Amino acid sequence: MEKTKEGMTQPKSNFSEWFSEVISKTELADLRYNVKGFLVHRPWSVIAIKEMYKLYEAELEKKGHKPVIFPAVIPKENFLKEAEHIEGFAPEVFWITKAGNTELTEEIALRPTSETAMYTMYAKWIRSWRDLPLKLYQSCQVWRYETKATRPFIRGREFYWIEAHDAFASREEAESQVKEDMEMTENIMHKEFGIPFIFFRRPEWDKFAGAVYTYAADTLMPDGKALQQPSTHLLGQNFAKSFGIKFVDRNEKEKTAWQTCYGPAIWRMFASVIALHGDDKGLVFPFKIAPLQVIIIPIILKGKEKPVLEKCKEIKEKLQSCFRIDVDFSDNTPGWKFNYWEMKGVPVRIEIGPKEVESEEFVVIRRDTGEKAKVKENQLQKTIEALGKDLTKNLVEKADKWFNGMIHSVKTLDELKEKRNKGGFFRVNFCSADMDGKECAEVLKEKFHLNVRGEMANREEKPEGNCIVCGKPAKVVVYLARQY
Amino acid sequence: MEKTKEGMTQPKSNFSEWFSEVISKTELADLRYNVKGFLVHRPWSVIAIKEMYKLYEAELEKKGHKPVIFPAVIPKENFLKEAEHIEGFAPEVFWITKAGNTELTEEIALRPTSETAMYTMYAKWIRSWRDLPLKLYQSCQVWRYETKATRPFIRGREFYWIEAHDAFASREEAESQVKEDMEMTENIMHKEFGIPFIFFRRPEWDKFAGAVYTYAADTLMPDGKALQQPSTHLLGQNFAKSFGIKFVDRNEKEKTAWQTCYGPAIWRMFASVIALHGDDKGLVFPFKIAPLQVIIIPIILKGKEKPVLEKCKEIKEKLQSCFRIDVDFSDNTPGWKFNYWEMKGVPVRIEIGPKEVESEEFVVIRRDTGEKAKVKENQLQKTIEALGKDLTKNLVEKADKWFNGMIHSVKTLDELKEKRNKGGFFRVNFCSADMDGKECAEVLKEKFHLNVRGEMANREEKPEGNCIVCGKPAKVVVYLARQY
Repeated sequence: MEKTKEGMTQPKSNFSEWFSEVISKTELADLRYNVKGFLVHRPWSVIAIKEMYKLYEAELEKKGHKPVIFPAVIPKENFLKEAEHIEGFAPEVFWITKAGNTELTEEIALRPTSETAMYTMYAKWIRSWRDLPLKLYQSCQVWRYETKATRPFIRGREFYWIEAHDAFASREEAESQVKEDMEMTENIMHKEFGIPFIFFRRPEWDKFAGAVYTYAADTLMPDGKALQQPSTHLLGQNFAKSFGIKFVDRNEKEKTAWQTCYGPAIWRMFASVIALHGDDKGLVFPFKIAPLQVIIIPIILKGKEKPVLEKCKEIKEKLQSCFRIDVDFSDNTPGWKFNYWEMKGVPVRIEIGPKEVESEEFVVIRRDTGEKAKVKENQLQKTIEALGKDLTKNLVEKADKWFNGMIHSVKTLDELKEKRNKGGFFRVNFCSADMDGKECAEVLKEKFHLNVRGEMANREEKPEGNCIVCGKPAKVVVYLARQY
Repeated sequence: MEKTKEGMTQPKSNFSEWFSEVISKTELADLRYNVKGFLVHRPWSVIAIKEMYKLYEAELEKKGHKPVIFPAVIPKENFLKEAEHIEGFAPEVFWITKAGNTELTEEIALRPTSETAMYTMYAKWIRSWRDLPLKLYQSCQVWRYETKATRPFIRGREFYWIEAHDAFASREEAESQVKEDMEMTENIMHKEFGIPFIFFRRPEWDKFAGAVYTYAADTLMPDGKALQQPSTHLLGQNFAKSFGIKFVDRNEKEKTAWQTCYGPAIWRMFASVIALHGDDKGLVFPFKIAPLQVIIIPIILKGKEKPVLEKCKEIKEKLQSCFRIDVDFSDNTPGWKFNYWEMKGVPVRIEIGPKEVESEEFVVIRRDTGEKAKVKENQLQKTIEALGKDLTKNLVEKADKWFNGMIHSVKTLDELKEKRNKGGFFRVNFCSADMDGKECAEVLKEKFHLNVRGEMANREEKPEGNCIVCGKPAKVVVYLARQY
């Protein structure tokens, strides 16, 4: 499989075309479903996405969350309870108005997010300080009528995520949950999936509808545009007051609960995995989430087929309790198979020919660097385990290095104009992240197509100088980027 | 927790009340969500349901299925392609007609089942005999506007299942898939979940809309009513013709594919797990799917708290890589805790007091039989593993024994009248399972509230005598039951 219509034809430097091609050629998804903005997910993405869910769910459970499953529909009356929330989401809601031939008396919404489904129940479940903290999550899809162009795994009218909704007795506990959410993002999204990010405190005009504040993790795509990854919100008591989530404290006094919510969008993380780690040859999967971790390629010489094929089968059977492993028994040539499984992003390839059967020593090749090693049969398991870890570590480091090089400090609009084609984040002095600053943000958007992503969430940066737009004394340092 | 408002008050012999009470008292689900027929699933059910999914998915993958995720919505035009199918499902479909403030130009359906979503893509994916068999499954929820009374886990307007959709080059292969589906039902639903069943070939008037034939596994609930569990359908070429699923065979000839589908409804299996294994004290979970497999209860004597609590923690930490295990550190009395965790259905309880700390020998109690054993600390893991297997085996055997005693052969309508209060299945001679027999089936339904479940799917039974209703020579032996 050379540069034919079967293999990749686009280099990754043509990112947009490369991204579309890699999704279709490696059979991650099919875009031809006949409802606009809805994606058909094929096994090659689903297996990886399931592994990503498992890792994230295990981390949430380690931090005391328990799983729930709420209905996919929300009655209109629930939406109406939190004014900002309905205002923010109303334009995006899909409404069910009919069942069979019956017009429903009250329209029901397909959930665009689950606050207003869950918090009616939280009000029933939370009675006393003994019921707190309440930390629940659900893995589910949500539906939003996006009017912007949709792109697979990046923006769709149906997407797959986890949402964690927590309630506490005090603001302090809620704020430390926001920190814990940021830690989980680091532990899983960065260390396991290899997605670098910065948590920004979103400016007032861009926070979650109904939140006190929003911390959102932005990563970058290879074209230098920012892609929002999980956000965690201090909801404060806004929803709790609207939904009546109250508890009796240790002193028998009635109090209102404090809430947070956190939304790791696995689907979108998968977009980053494809985009950040892939190369001109195709996909490169971090080891733990690869749909197939090891592929065995038989190297067959005429008349010596049998011992080779048997050895391949034997190795697969030996290792299949440790890894997702398979043998390519197809009629294609070894060269075609090498290219094919490289394109599919399988982390480890083992080549087995007659020589290897005899010596019980196999050639093992890793996808990220192409390095080859000879490995004794009884060392295979250990070697692959170590190699898997190292491959993931290498992907993390490479992505980090690139990401860190994409942050540019900029002093003036002229400098911004000159540098903006570099892509990435532009660190600038800015008048204000409160509503006062909205006007300057709009100037940046109109003139440069740059969005204010916010201040760094976990590092205070003191501005020195004046707002890059209006020239008034800067109150904050913010980061700008083009966005998906 | 004695017979107070906190514990179970209904004996299982009042099945309907017991079922409602056990769901609410053990916090499996909450029925108070404000959309009729939609259920809120709490952690105690979700953890078990996830384990059930895992076991079933592993079995499907072992048999060559791969996971996919299809959109939850289906455009109307897809439905219109298979005439019988749309006729069967039309009254139950929820329709999305609006998004934000926009009226959609074409209404879209929330999937009631996914044939018409998936097969448009199968037509694109299947080109040659090399693409066959195509065996895919998805784990998802479906929505049906049920007009009958809904009951948690039994019948709802939203329910959780797996659907496997397979395509083959020949009818023979498709028919052997139907057999494989029946085997999977045995391997997982019977052996792991302890749900006995009979596969019936549904009569013509009761088969799946669009199928050539339907084999459906019926189990029984404790009140003697049948509950349909997975069904597997030979779809033949009906859908393939409507959707254009064709392939070029080895001789370069264009052929139409043969299809099957299989629908293990995990949600409904969970209803059977609750109903079949529970007792007057509450739930009893088969070991592998228990949300918590082992609960440790500290037995505290004043002044001797510390070593006991430390030992409890130590044992939990030692065993938590093998089992879902926890310690009840709450302020409640040991007696209250015993009753509480029995009600919750935890398979194994370990009691640890000062004596046990000293002797390093603990009392281990199993939930199903209440048997106690003394177990040395270094034997705990092995003992619990063995005990878990034995507990599941015991639940399977008990359920089987009861189930087999609920099958009654009946010769006349008088005998049927006399025995029908026993519940279960009534084996009778019947004129015909083709459309000819529909009239007699309606008589049984009207007079006795009994439904014709069909002939045994995997055993041919020769009728001897005449139809129990019309007296004409019987062509088949069928089984009758009241149904959920």
